[in-house]
Amino acid sequence: MFGLLVSGVALMAAGIVFPAYAQQGALMPLPASMVAGTGQLVVDGSFTVALAGPADPHLDAAARTLIRQLSAKTGQFLAGAPVTGGATLTLTVTRASATVPAPNEDEAYTLTVTPGGASITAATSIGINRGIATFVQLVAAGPQGYAVPAVTIHDQPRFPWRGLLLDVSRHFMPVATVERTLDLMQAVKLNVLHWHLADNQGFRVESKVYPKLHQLGSDGNFYTQDQVRAVIRYAADRGIRVVPEFDMPGHTTAWLVGYPELASQPGPYTIERHWGVFDPALDPTRDSTYQFLDRLVGEMTALFPDAYFHIGGDEVNGEQWKASPAVQAYMKAHGLKDTAALQALFTTKVQAIVARHGKHAIGWDEIMDGDMPKDVVVQSWRDAESLRKAALAGHAGILSAPYYLDLNWPAGRHYAADPMPENLPADLANLILGGEACAWSERLSPENLDIRLWPRAAVVAEKLWSPRAMTADTAGMYRRLDGVARDLAWAGSRHEAAGLAMLARVAGPAGVDALLPLAQAVEPLKDYRRSAQRPDAVQGTPLNRLVDTVPAESAQARAFSLAVDHFRTNPRDVEARAAVLRPLMVWAQGDAVLAPHVGATPLLAELAGPSAKLARLADAGLAAAEALHTGKPMVDRAGGEKAVVDAADAGAELEFAILPAVARLVKAAP
Amino acid sequence: MFGLLVSGVALMAAGIVFPAYAQQGALMPLPASMVAGTGQLVVDGSFTVALAGPADPHLDAAARTLIRQLSAKTGQFLAGAPVTGGATLTLTVTRASATVPAPNEDEAYTLTVTPGGASITAATSIGINRGIATFVQLVAAGPQGYAVPAVTIHDQPRFPWRGLLLDVSRHFMPVATVERTLDLMQAVKLNVLHWHLADNQGFRVESKVYPKLHQLGSDGNFYTQDQVRAVIRYAADRGIRVVPEFDMPGHTTAWLVGYPELASQPGPYTIERHWGVFDPALDPTRDSTYQFLDRLVGEMTALFPDAYFHIGGDEVNGEQWKASPAVQAYMKAHGLKDTAALQALFTTKVQAIVARHGKHAIGWDEIMDGDMPKDVVVQSWRDAESLRKAALAGHAGILSAPYYLDLNWPAGRHYAADPMPENLPADLANLILGGEACAWSERLSPENLDIRLWPRAAVVAEKLWSPRAMTADTAGMYRRLDGVARDLAWAGSRHEAAGLAMLARVAGPAGVDALLPLAQAVEPLKDYRRSAQRPDAVQGTPLNRLVDTVPAESAQARAFSLAVDHFRTNPRDVEARAAVLRPLMVWAQGDAVLAPHVGATPLLAELAGPSAKLARLADAGLAAAEALHTGKPMVDRAGGEKAVVDAADAGAELEFAILPAVARLVKAAP
Repeated sequence: MFGLLVSGVALMAAGIVFPAYAQQGALMPLPASMVAGTGQLVVDGSFTVALAGPADPHLDAAARTLIRQLSAKTGQFLAGAPVTGGATLTLTVTRASATVPAPNEDEAYTLTVTPGGASITAATSIGINRGIATFVQLVAAGPQGYAVPAVTIHDQPRFPWRGLLLDVSRHFMPVATVERTLDLMQAVKLNVLHWHLADNQGFRVESKVYPKLHQLGSDGNFYTQDQVRAVIRYAADRGIRVVPEFDMPGHTTAWLVGYPELASQPGPYTIERHWGVFDPALDPTRDSTYQFLDRLVGEMTALFPDAYFHIGGDEVNGEQWKASPAVQAYMKAHGLKDTAALQALFTTKVQAIVARHGKHAIGWDEIMDGDMPKDVVVQSWRDAESLRKAALAGHAGILSAPYYLDLNWPAGRHYAADPMPENLPADLANLILGGEACAWSERLSPENLDIRLWPRAAVVAEKLWSPRAMTADTAGMYRRLDGVARDLAWAGSRHEAAGLAMLARVAGPAGVDALLPLAQAVEPLKDYRRSAQRPDAVQGTPLNRLVDTVPAESAQARAFSLAVDHFRTNPRDVEARAAVLRPLMVWAQGDAVLAPHVGATPLLAELAGPSAKLARLADAGLAAAEALHTGKPMVDRAGGEKAVVDAADAGAELEFAILPAVARLVKAAP
Repeated sequence: MFGLLVSGVALMAAGIVFPAYAQQGALMPLPASMVAGTGQLVVDGSFTVALAGPADPHLDAAARTLIRQLSAKTGQFLAGAPVTGGATLTLTVTRASATVPAPNEDEAYTLTVTPGGASITAATSIGINRGIATFVQLVAAGPQGYAVPAVTIHDQPRFPWRGLLLDVSRHFMPVATVERTLDLMQAVKLNVLHWHLADNQGFRVESKVYPKLHQLGSDGNFYTQDQVRAVIRYAADRGIRVVPEFDMPGHTTAWLVGYPELASQPGPYTIERHWGVFDPALDPTRDSTYQFLDRLVGEMTALFPDAYFHIGGDEVNGEQWKASPAVQAYMKAHGLKDTAALQALFTTKVQAIVARHGKHAIGWDEIMDGDMPKDVVVQSWRDAESLRKAALAGHAGILSAPYYLDLNWPAGRHYAADPMPENLPADLANLILGGEACAWSERLSPENLDIRLWPRAAVVAEKLWSPRAMTADTAGMYRRLDGVARDLAWAGSRHEAAGLAMLARVAGPAGVDALLPLAQAVEPLKDYRRSAQRPDAVQGTPLNRLVDTVPAESAQARAFSLAVDHFRTNPRDVEARAAVLRPLMVWAQGDAVLAPHVGATPLLAELAGPSAKLARLADAGLAAAEALHTGKPMVDRAGGEKAVVDAADAGAELEFAILPAVARLVKAAP
C-alpha cells in the first residue's frame, strides 16, 4: 500500500513537474579565457561595490544593475550605493563612456575573484557591464551560502554586433517590456537593440513632422519621442546600442493610412491586419516621396543617435508599381528593366538621404541591389551566403536568417549556425560584424514575448560572443541552459511566470494539473507552419492558446529522447526502462483527466484531438518499450504504428515533441 | 505495471501540485444585491467600452483599468480607447469626481448585464471603479468563450473606510510595488491606502524643509515628492484615498538621525535595525519640537491632499522622558503624573497643529489619552472594544487589530472578525467607519509582499464591503478564494509567481520538486512567534528562506484537514481513505528525496529537521489511517504519538499546517 504513491514523488523528482528549476546558474556566453583560482568569495549581506576611474553616470548605472541582479538572485538586502575603497567588488574603468555606445566599442574586461575580493576592469562602463553579467552568473549557493569561485577571466567578444531585433509593429510592446528586454540583453552580453518600429501593421514612433504617421498608423500604440529617448538612455546604461528600422519602400501600409500620396495607388489605406507580403509600397518615381523621406529621416536620425539607420528594403513584390501607368512610364523613360531595378534606384536615393544626415545605412539583403557605397551594412534574412557575396563586394554584414526565435526552433539549431560564411577569404572575415536574434511579432505579444525569447536568445548571444571553438558542444550548451534560464528569471524574464499563468488561463476550470501532461509533450509548430495551418489569423487574433503558451522546446521531450536512446541500448536495464516508462505513463493517462473538461471552454475544446492522440502515441510507446524490455513481440504493432502516423498532425498548431523518440521506440521494438 | 504511475496523474489531478489554479474567478466582496438574468454577454475581441456623463479624467482611467484587466484575464487584444455609443459596456456617471476622493464618497453602483450589452452607472468614477471590479470578476470562460452571466447588481459598501496599511519604513517598497498594490486594492474595492511612511527603521518621504529626515534617515530609500504626487494620482484614478502616517512621538528614531535635538536625550542616533519598541521619542516639553512639527506637518499636509493626517501615537515606553531631568522637571511643573499624561499633552498639541493645517487627525488607540476634539479618528491596534470606548466618547474609529496580514493567520480568522463592537448603542454605529488590513513589514520585502497580502486582503475587503449577514459563511468564502487569487494574479499580484521563484531559490540545486512536499505541509509561525524564535533578526536579515516563501495558509493542509474529517466518519470508504493517503504518502516520502540535498546550501540546511519530522508525522498519519480503515490497532502507537508531539516544534520558523489533522487521525485510531 505504501508503495502506491512513491511514484508520485519519483515523478516530481524526475523533473516532470519543474524541470527548469532544477539547476543553479551557469555561464552563457562562455568567456574567452578562464583560469580557476583557489577558494571562493562569499557574497552575503555585507557585499559592497566600489567604483574607480573617471566619474561616469553609466558606471553608476552599471553598479546599480549589479546590485539589483545580485539582490534578486540571492534574496539578500544589499547596499545600493557604491562605497569608497575596501569593497567586495571594485569596478575600474580607464575612461568615461560616451553618451551612447558606438558600433565598435572596446567590450573586453578582466574579472579577478579571490577569497578576499573581486575586481572588474575595463576601458569603459561597457566592458564593466559585460563583466558584471559574468560575475552575477558565477554566483552560486553552496554550503557556506552564496559565493563566487576564485577565478581570473580575460574576456572579449568574437563579434562586435550582437543584436536582438524586436518587432513592435505587428504587436506593440510597451516601454516596460522593451526595458525588460534590455535588462535581459545585458545579462547575456547582447549589445544592439534593433527596434523594428514600422511595418504594414503599425507605425510605432511619434513623428512631429508627419504626425499622421503615428496618429493614424498605430491604433494609439506608439512611443512618444520622450519615451524613445528614455529607452535609448536605458540601453546606453547597459552598454547597448539602439538601431531603429524604418522598413521601406514595402512594409509601409501603416504609413499610407495618414499619407496615401506616398504610394503609387491612391488609397485610401487602412492599417494592415493580416500577416504576409502585401502590395502597398512607397512610390519611388516622385520627387515628393524623397522630400518626405528627407524630412522624416532628418527627424528620426536626430532622435536616434546611433551611427546606423536601418532602411529595411525587404520583400517588395512590385505589384503596385506594375499596376501604375505613371510608374511604368517612369521605368521605361529611365531604362529600368524590372521593379527590382526600380527598387534599387529607390534604395540608392534613400541611402544618399541617410548619408546626408550623417548616418550609415543598413538594410536587408535586397539593399545590395542598389548602388551602395562601402559603408552600407547588409543584414541577411536569407543566409550566410548573402553575407559572403556582400563581403566580396566590400560590404560588412550581419546574419539573422538562422536566429529567428519566433519560429520556435530548438536552441541547438540556432547554436549550430555560425555567422561566418563558408569559403570567405580570411582577409574579409572582419566584414562579418556578427548577427541578430530576431523576434518577429506576428505571434508574439507583451505577454508571451519572454516565453519565445528566453532562454534561447542566450544561445545566440553565446554564438556571437564566445570563441568559435567554444561553441561547438551542443550537449554542454544544453546542460547550462536551465541554469541560465533561472538567472534570466532573476534578471526579470517572465518566461516561467508567464508560461504558468497562461497555462492556467488555457486550463481554466480544468486546472493546470490536468493540462500539464499534454503541455509538456507538445511544442508549437515550427517555421511558418502555424501560418499555413491558420492562414486566417490576424493582428487581433488572441495569443492565449496552448500553442502560444508552451516553450518552443519541451525540456521533458528532450529528456525523454535522451532516456529513449539510453534505453534502446540497455533494454534490460530496469532504471533505463523506468526512465522511459515514467513520462510515458503520465502522457498515456493524461487524456483520461483532461477529456472530461474539454467541452468547458474553446481554449480547451481544440485540445480534445491532441490530447487523445497523445494518449494513443504514449500507449504505443509503452507497448514498444515493453516489447524491447521483454524481447517479446510488440502488442498491437499495427495500432501503435498508426498512432505514430496519426500523431504527425497533432492539431491546434501544435506538434508532438515526443514523436520522434516514440517512433524510434516503435521502430526498435521486436 | 501500467498502474504504477496512474497515481502520478492522480496526484496532479488531486490538486497537490497546483491547487491555486483549479478554479475560475469568483466574486469577492459579495455585492449587496444581485438578481440573476437570462443568458450571457459574450466578452470577445470585439468588446468595447463607452463613457457617458460629464467628462472626467478619472473615468477615462477607470475605462483603461477595465480594458487592461479584461485583456489580462482573457488574453484577448481589446481596443483601449472608449467608443461613442453602441459599446459592449457603457460607464455612466452623474458628475465628475474630485481630484482626489473624499472620506465619504458615494461608492454605490448599479451593474446591469444582458446578452445585448452591459452598463455600470454610479455618481462618479469612484462607484464605476467598484462596478468594474465586479464586472471583471464576473467574466468566466464557458463553452462559447469568455462571457458574463446576465445579472442586475445594486451594490454599495457597508463601511466607508476600507483600508490597507502599507509599512514602507521597516522595509522600503518601491513606487512600482505601491502602484501594484493600488491595482490590487481596486480589484477588491479597498479604498484607503494608509501609507506608514516613517518609523524607527526609516523616514521614507522627501522633506524639503527638513531634508536630513530623508537624507540621513532612509539609506537612500525614500519617495521624492514628485513620486508621492504620482502615487496619489494613481490612487485617485482608482478611487483610493492616500492617508499618510508620521508616527510620533515614539517610533521616530529615523527622524533623530538627522535631527537629534528633537529628542530629550542628546544622541547621536542611527537608524534602528532591530524590531520592537524602543526608547527614543520626540521631546514633548520643548517649544522647538512643536515649531519643527508645525513646519513639517505644514509641508506634508500640503503634499498629501487627504482630509486625514495620521499621527501614530502608539507604543511610547517613556524611558527617555523618565531619564531626562529636564523632562522630569517639566512634568512636575505642569502636574503631569506619568509619561502617559505627558504623551497626552503632546498629542493634544500635535492635533492642534494638524487642525491648524486644515486636517483631521487620526491616531492609534493611545491618541484617546489626549484632549481630543470630536473629529479625531481612532484606529485600533488593540481590539474592537477600544472602538466602543472611543465611540462612547464621540469618536469615529476604524479597526485593525484582527487584520494584521503579516502575522500569517488564516483567512478564516480575519473573516470572523467584525469591526462593529459588541454592545455598541445603535445610534453610535455610524461612528464605526470600517477597518484596515495591515502589512507591517518586519518580515515583508518587495519580493514577498504579495505572498503575504494576497488573496487574504480580499477577505478583509469583503468583511468591510459586504452586508454583515453575507460574511458569515466561512466555507463559502474559502470556496471562492482560489478563484479570487487567480483574478488577483491577472490584476498584477505576484503571489503565485514570486512564491514559485522564491521556492526555486530555496531549493537551489535540489530543485523545486524535491522541496514541494515539505513546502506544502508547512506554514510560517503565526502571531509574533517568529520574533520569539529568532529575536536576532534585523532589518538586513534576508527574507529568502522557506518561511518567507510559503503562504500563510497551506491550501493542501486545509484540503487534507477536510479529507481527514470526512474519512473519520467514513473510515471504510475507499475513496475517503485514498484522499487521506495520497497527500500523506507524498509527505512521508518527501524527506527521502530532500535529505540528500540538505547539506548543499544554508537555505536547505535548516530544513533538515523539519523535513525529517514531517516524514515521521506523515508516517504516524498513515499508520493511524490504516488502523482506522481496518479496525485493527494502530501500529507503533507510541511512536506515532511521539511524532505528533515532536512536530509541535517544526523549526526554521515554520509550523506543520497538517499537524492538527494528523493528531485527530492518531487520536481517532483504534
